[in-house]
Amino acid sequence: MRKEIQVGLLGFGTVGSGVAKIMIDHQQDLQHKLGVEVNIKKVLVRNLTKKRETDLPIEVFTDNLDEILNDSSIDLIIEVMGGMNGTKEAIEASLRAGKGVVTANKDVMAVYGPELLRLADANKCDLFYEASVGGGIPLIRTMEDGLASDRISSLTGIVNGTTNFILTKMKQENMSYEEALAQATELGFAEADPSADVDGIDAARKMVILASLAFSTEVQLDDVFVRGMKEIQDGDVELAESFGYTVKMAGHAEKDEEGIAVSVEPVFIPNSHPLASVHNEYNAVYIYGAAVGETMLYGPGAGSLPTATSVTGDVVAACRNLLLGMNGKRSHSPQHERKVKDDDKRFSRYFHRILVKDEVGVLTQLTAIYSRQGASLATVIQHPGKSERDAEVIFITHRMSRQQHLDVLKELEEADAVIDVLSHYRVEGDEK
Amino acid sequence: MRKEIQVGLLGFGTVGSGVAKIMIDHQQDLQHKLGVEVNIKKVLVRNLTKKRETDLPIEVFTDNLDEILNDSSIDLIIEVMGGMNGTKEAIEASLRAGKGVVTANKDVMAVYGPELLRLADANKCDLFYEASVGGGIPLIRTMEDGLASDRISSLTGIVNGTTNFILTKMKQENMSYEEALAQATELGFAEADPSADVDGIDAARKMVILASLAFSTEVQLDDVFVRGMKEIQDGDVELAESFGYTVKMAGHAEKDEEGIAVSVEPVFIPNSHPLASVHNEYNAVYIYGAAVGETMLYGPGAGSLPTATSVTGDVVAACRNLLLGMNGKRSHSPQHERKVKDDDKRFSRYFHRILVKDEVGVLTQLTAIYSRQGASLATVIQHPGKSERDAEVIFITHRMSRQQHLDVLKELEEADAVIDVLSHYRVEGDEK
Repeated sequence: MRKEIQVGLLGFGTVGSGVAKIMIDHQQDLQHKLGVEVNIKKVLVRNLTKKRETDLPIEVFTDNLDEILNDSSIDLIIEVMGGMNGTKEAIEASLRAGKGVVTANKDVMAVYGPELLRLADANKCDLFYEASVGGGIPLIRTMEDGLASDRISSLTGIVNGTTNFILTKMKQENMSYEEALAQATELGFAEADPSADVDGIDAARKMVILASLAFSTEVQLDDVFVRGMKEIQDGDVELAESFGYTVKMAGHAEKDEEGIAVSVEPVFIPNSHPLASVHNEYNAVYIYGAAVGETMLYGPGAGSLPTATSVTGDVVAACRNLLLGMNGKRSHSPQHERKVKDDDKRFSRYFHRILVKDEVGVLTQLTAIYSRQGASLATVIQHPGKSERDAEVIFITHRMSRQQHLDVLKELEEADAVIDVLSHYRVEGDEK
Repeated sequence: MRKEIQVGLLGFGTVGSGVAKIMIDHQQDLQHKLGVEVNIKKVLVRNLTKKRETDLPIEVFTDNLDEILNDSSIDLIIEVMGGMNGTKEAIEASLRAGKGVVTANKDVMAVYGPELLRLADANKCDLFYEASVGGGIPLIRTMEDGLASDRISSLTGIVNGTTNFILTKMKQENMSYEEALAQATELGFAEADPSADVDGIDAARKMVILASLAFSTEVQLDDVFVRGMKEIQDGDVELAESFGYTVKMAGHAEKDEEGIAVSVEPVFIPNSHPLASVHNEYNAVYIYGAAVGETMLYGPGAGSLPTATSVTGDVVAACRNLLLGMNGKRSHSPQHERKVKDDDKRFSRYFHRILVKDEVGVLTQLTAIYSRQGASLATVIQHPGKSERDAEVIFITHRMSRQQHLDVLKELEEADAVIDVLSHYRVEGDEK
């Protein structure tokens, strides 16, 4: 029986240093859980001369990946470099060298996940990636193990902390988008270039990872329908509130016999829905399973220590597998062929906000469009517009297909009475 | 390599029949996950002649436990009989016969959990009990695996669906306690004798299981401080709302260097806290870990299919262990000695509602009591009482020890100006 497991750490940024801190601070707990010591033997960094605050001895640091790959005493690699620059290659090389990998890299897993998981299977190595989605929330594990016997039919998630922080501030403190973004940047929740967050790309990557796992199929980034925060118009957040909804940037994935559908977009969430209470930088994923019904997992979506906790949880699982000689024994081959639903098979309620000329017969003209498209209306409200000659009309529809929604929008935009379709949203949940 | 795993099912009530249904309906998914078939070979029932709607063949049913225990082809026992009548003995006999056990039995696990887990270790068998707490919510697994590397400092949970349903109806629909209980009974959420639920006993059992696991120590049922729903007085729910709180029957467990403290009682939860949005029969557990920060797991706390999903998740895990020859290899020995905190080491804010004589100098007399006990006040409010000669005084304190709280209550009850201490609550969360 071996007495210790040696680990190689790739990257020593906020997550990497957090992992090192947890593994050093909790050495005793880890030893109790595993019966052996777990030691960080080597740490790959770009710049060896940089000053670092850490309890790790200086000689563990190296700028040469091969030094780690060629060290046969190292059984496990933790990849926390982030980004796409050389990370896929580092994970591949680690697996080819017969070392298990724990990664927090959503970018790599969203694009190359299936390929890397197959490589792990072929090399009889574990590849764990809990921290790639939802920071400290054990999402991957729950779907792999906890709901293993259930058939997941849909999941709706707030998986980007930056956009959720911005929308919370806009709703609760009436901030403008720009003010809220500035505060998010100041607090370190938003990056200097926030476009991956606010355009929904970051959330789309995470949804690819979650949907692939939930539905046991290989979802691709191109399968995700994405609309960014810029679709949210002035007044929409207040308007949603007046109807009992909260605007959230939400990912949604669903599966039925017609195939899968995955999207990331601003959505109207009913205030009574648990996701509406997920505030600030927090993340949550709401899972609907055939048997279990509704489950929600909530927690910090990012941050050094939460993410490092997920990484270390994976390290514990990987070490346990190593000690029991069962590493790489879980197959990752998807159970189902990838099949993406057409727009006429995706059903939801919709919210349409339309600026119209304030003249006789406008509502008749507009409602006729919905009738022609076979779409039925749950709510119709007309407000005075900003000028005397226009008005705003709000429609909330019953469930209809996305194709119907798009056809209605097209006809609305061409209608004489319509000045502009100001905004439109999918409405989460069943009829109230 | 074996081609199938044979399972014995003890009990065929709502959970047992749900487990059978899931295992039959999802046979193909299970086979994909495990690579082998999982079959229910025998089912123990009390009454063989009872008519049952099931796809299982009639010959699998037996009323003789030994027939299952002596069947060497059966490797795994699922105990879903419930209650204390013979269940501990059945689990023991199964483990002694070298069979792994999956149980949904909170009563047995709360009282005999440590003993049974040691017996499982000694017999190199798995004993899984995910479904014993929180129905379909993967709580046990999350704490064992997902947060394995974190140090959990506290957990607060709504772990009883009946009381949460009653309190939701009282708050949202202004029902009386009696009306809400009647509706819970009608809908099947409350049992004919609801005392284990409303008195907090059911929640206390679940908190014992959760706290033992979270803190790696053997918590006993007697360690749990319990106050039932009858402590909630008329008007308390509305009063809480007017201060921005929701009354919840909540379990709380905390640990620091002074030891552990576990309680179940009606608590004031700030409306901004995620637990305040947990409605109706739903359960949720809010976990605070040193590294991960706040995490919350939410879902159905009971019900045939949710509970059966957790059971089947355990079955998958146990089968995987059997196939890999790693059954019974995870030690359950607690890491820490049990040490329960004294009342002067348990800190919280408190809410006190006091009926006083409406006369000069009352507030001075009362506030002097708090000062004498070293307790400081955050909020003081005086309302007119029901008669002309009395008044109600509300105090919300800053953090103080439970001992201070009890000493203050005692002095209040003896004070000349005080007619009655109407109610008092622990207030969850930090200062607002």
